[in-house]
Amino acid sequence: MADPERPGPGAAHPDPHLFEHRVGGTTLVSGGFLEVRRDDVLLPDGSPATREYIQHSGAVAVVPILDDGRLVLVRQYRYPVAKVLLEWPAGKRDPGEPVLACAMRELQEETGYTAHEWAYGGEIHNAAAYSSESIWIWFARGLVAGAPRLDHGEFVETVLLGEAELDALASRDELPDVKTLIGLHWLQRWRAGTRRLVWHDAVTAATL
Amino acid sequence: MADPERPGPGAAHPDPHLFEHRVGGTTLVSGGFLEVRRDDVLLPDGSPATREYIQHSGAVAVVPILDDGRLVLVRQYRYPVAKVLLEWPAGKRDPGEPVLACAMRELQEETGYTAHEWAYGGEIHNAAAYSSESIWIWFARGLVAGAPRLDHGEFVETVLLGEAELDALASRDELPDVKTLIGLHWLQRWRAGTRRLVWHDAVTAATL
Repeated sequence: MADPERPGPGAAHPDPHLFEHRVGGTTLVSGGFLEVRRDDVLLPDGSPATREYIQHSGAVAVVPILDDGRLVLVRQYRYPVAKVLLEWPAGKRDPGEPVLACAMRELQEETGYTAHEWAYGGEIHNAAAYSSESIWIWFARGLVAGAPRLDHGEFVETVLLGEAELDALASRDELPDVKTLIGLHWLQRWRAGTRRLVWHDAVTAATL
Repeated sequence: MADPERPGPGAAHPDPHLFEHRVGGTTLVSGGFLEVRRDDVLLPDGSPATREYIQHSGAVAVVPILDDGRLVLVRQYRYPVAKVLLEWPAGKRDPGEPVLACAMRELQEETGYTAHEWAYGGEIHNAAAYSSESIWIWFARGLVAGAPRLDHGEFVETVLLGEAELDALASRDELPDVKTLIGLHWLQRWRAGTRRLVWHDAVTAATL
């Protein structure tokens, strides 16, 4: 899941007129927060090119629904865009970590909440031009409050908001984070009966 | 717009308990496709940290609406995720390029279409944890077909799809690209009368 499977030059691809074959590559940055690669590829017409991208282990975002209908979000300073953003609790997956375990961990670390029930929402690609990142969106309910366990150097504040308040922020373009917009939209679709969520208790969900 | 304004250490910030001050930095990768930076920052409690991120000039995505209601999309191989993705015509802004000029250019280069009317949709952040990228979403109608002018090494195919077909793909999780999901959602809201678009002719729009 972390490293997309890349068929070799001889393999069939359903879109051979679009497909790019990897023929080599190098790591440009490694060891810190980002891993940056430059691969040598052959384009569909056989001509050579390079592709620079972030090799990413993927991330989760959790849409946590309180029993009274309010939603649990976090506010944090996002240095690259120099803004405080309102977002679903979310975080990067540790290499090899099961996606749901990551979702449970991030929800608890950032907000203190644990959840009795979980439902898988879907997978999105947020920067496919230059990052291998997937974000897997999960929904959580049956929430129990607890103390956040933020990493050293993590400054995150928990915010409880009604669905209508969050929708109003989105309408005023005050909710620019993509996973938060999409998770809210899926939540609204589920409420409206036009998107299915299959709920499992936390123990069962972890075995799926 | 390309480089977020960063108040210096003495400046006031509405969220001082979350804000991170830049105190220095270095460029890790430059000159190719990606510009990767590592900044030295002071966290809200004054402790030092580093932030690695992509410095990005921003991108546009265009939701092009044909007179018969069908939508113009593109399919292309996204090497970092090793998948062919269905997306709105989109592309990176040249440094200093006005956003609408970029939208007009990318629509024409990738699909050949030009548009008589344009409406601004909104701004999203797709990878705020590690990229300064903004994606500005525009809507285009009054479309006139023409010949695409793809860059050398660009392999992109144009696809015309009805709104219901695109919604069905999204419901089946076959539309994972975030800007495409969000643009579709905004289009549906506009059709439903719950999101406003202000249309301008192409000449007027360019002067806004």
